[in-house]
Amino acid sequence: MELEFLGTSSGTPTRTRNVAGVALRLDGGGWLLVDCGEGTQHRILQTTLSLHALRAVFITHLHGDHCYGLPGLLASAGMANRTEPLTVVGPPPLDAYLQGVMATTALHLPYEIHCIGVGEAEAGAPLSGVNVSVTALSHRLPSYAYGFAEAAVERRLDTARLRADGVPPGPAWGRLQQGDTVTLPDGRILQGADYLQAPRKARKIVIAGDNDTPALLAQELAAADVLVHEATYTDAVLAKVGPGPQHSSARMVAQCAAEAKLPNLVLTHFSPRYQDDDSDGGPPGLTLAALRDEAQAHYGGNLLLASDLARYRLDRDGTLVPVAPVAADRAHQA
Amino acid sequence: MELEFLGTSSGTPTRTRNVAGVALRLDGGGWLLVDCGEGTQHRILQTTLSLHALRAVFITHLHGDHCYGLPGLLASAGMANRTEPLTVVGPPPLDAYLQGVMATTALHLPYEIHCIGVGEAEAGAPLSGVNVSVTALSHRLPSYAYGFAEAAVERRLDTARLRADGVPPGPAWGRLQQGDTVTLPDGRILQGADYLQAPRKARKIVIAGDNDTPALLAQELAAADVLVHEATYTDAVLAKVGPGPQHSSARMVAQCAAEAKLPNLVLTHFSPRYQDDDSDGGPPGLTLAALRDEAQAHYGGNLLLASDLARYRLDRDGTLVPVAPVAADRAHQA
Repeated sequence: MELEFLGTSSGTPTRTRNVAGVALRLDGGGWLLVDCGEGTQHRILQTTLSLHALRAVFITHLHGDHCYGLPGLLASAGMANRTEPLTVVGPPPLDAYLQGVMATTALHLPYEIHCIGVGEAEAGAPLSGVNVSVTALSHRLPSYAYGFAEAAVERRLDTARLRADGVPPGPAWGRLQQGDTVTLPDGRILQGADYLQAPRKARKIVIAGDNDTPALLAQELAAADVLVHEATYTDAVLAKVGPGPQHSSARMVAQCAAEAKLPNLVLTHFSPRYQDDDSDGGPPGLTLAALRDEAQAHYGGNLLLASDLARYRLDRDGTLVPVAPVAADRAHQA
Repeated sequence: MELEFLGTSSGTPTRTRNVAGVALRLDGGGWLLVDCGEGTQHRILQTTLSLHALRAVFITHLHGDHCYGLPGLLASAGMANRTEPLTVVGPPPLDAYLQGVMATTALHLPYEIHCIGVGEAEAGAPLSGVNVSVTALSHRLPSYAYGFAEAAVERRLDTARLRADGVPPGPAWGRLQQGDTVTLPDGRILQGADYLQAPRKARKIVIAGDNDTPALLAQELAAADVLVHEATYTDAVLAKVGPGPQHSSARMVAQCAAEAKLPNLVLTHFSPRYQDDDSDGGPPGLTLAALRDEAQAHYGGNLLLASDLARYRLDRDGTLVPVAPVAADRAHQA
């Protein structure tokens, strides 16, 4: 499982950060898109992600910086001759938004859109291999976090026990790994379940929409390896802005992650007032370092501040490590 | 008057070209935007154009690659605290498109949007200093060309005649330039109209939407200095694609411009199949040079193929010259 950030700015794009969008690459191939701000398809052109391999889109909430790129992305997938149906998940009125845009701009797609609600995404199985969980957040519009967990983990044979019990390597090992009952030539009957290691924990990544109450995620984070959450400001800026916009500070998210004993926290959705570093000449204190320092004061786990096109791999042991971005070298034609 | 191209690709963005958008900078300050494909606001961040100085938006037609950037641009202008009302011109259902997006995504702007039809833009005077003319084109959706002509040109005194008639420089010259009647100390009565040079031609730029019948512009081009028109393909590619998409080839536009004796022709809206040059490794013949060669075979005027962020100044004598792009050095915050 890999995360690839397509936009990390809040509200409006900047010259270095686009508005919200994050790709979740799945081990079995294909990828999911969470949020699709304007220009998400432009960022995708800078990656190796393909609109043909996109398995579903999840919209956390309907503010423009999280969904204004969706019609264009759908149109470009059509011009690239996508024929596979595409599931789009989000709170109402996502369907009315899409249908309205498509009708007024004569957008006719060569593939079906299955627009479903967040409850349906959780209850149903739109995605093989991935279990989706949904958590309602607190924002000016209905906003959600999506949890993506591996539906199954690989079975691993306890080969030490097999050898200790005098079962030689051979076809029986494969059948035991499948959980079958096996009768050996010496008459012994073995149960597969007795020779499987305890399964590793299924990996789980939670990607949250805009939210001013991170504690709403406490239960969802219990089994999570990674949380991707907005940290729009520092506490100091939040105090000036006031609670109206209903965003979180870096401190608020960090405290929640610490309480949940979360191993990996990725912050994103930074206010454009924050410069990447002091060399940009912005006001002192309004840099990403200020956000990082505030989060680190409350959270001792693996803390990452996302930048556009940053890519992180979640290994099977639950560690999250940066991956060097791969330059796209494909021709993009429509 | 200056043109600044914000997108020059057809249908979908490429890694070097965004979808449709062109800025028309006015001499008196401020600028107009013609078309607003997705990512137009991102291109604007790479220029010195300000959303506060944007005087009106003209949409040629409602295909997504010409209008999907409009909601995000309006939202960003709001987050930048624009308060000046903004006129948005285009064919129906532009208003329904915008109202639908705004309602379903809870977009509340701190300024008024005046959404008007193309007929109203031509008849009324939404823009001081600029006369707008409208020409219906031929495309899959109602599509228009907008002509922008100077409403007035500067009055220039015939100083040679004043000197010949023994009128010395002084306050009388200024009053004569205003067209006033002036009584000289020697009793002579002079009419301003007798001492003004023939006014220069008012400059006029025509920016066309998608169109498969350039000859529809013949009348509109009679007084124009510049036509900006799509040249989506060469004739050879058009023959393969067929007439269904209702686009023009470079040859079709060039012939129309030649017949109109148009001094300056700017081609844009190139199919993404065309590479900027052969070094991109695309199929032979599918480069911008093929489009240029085809147009040049039929048009002997000043021919330009637009690229993103290219900027051209239309001088008072009607010549169109490239201007070096100015890097934006402003901070963009919201």
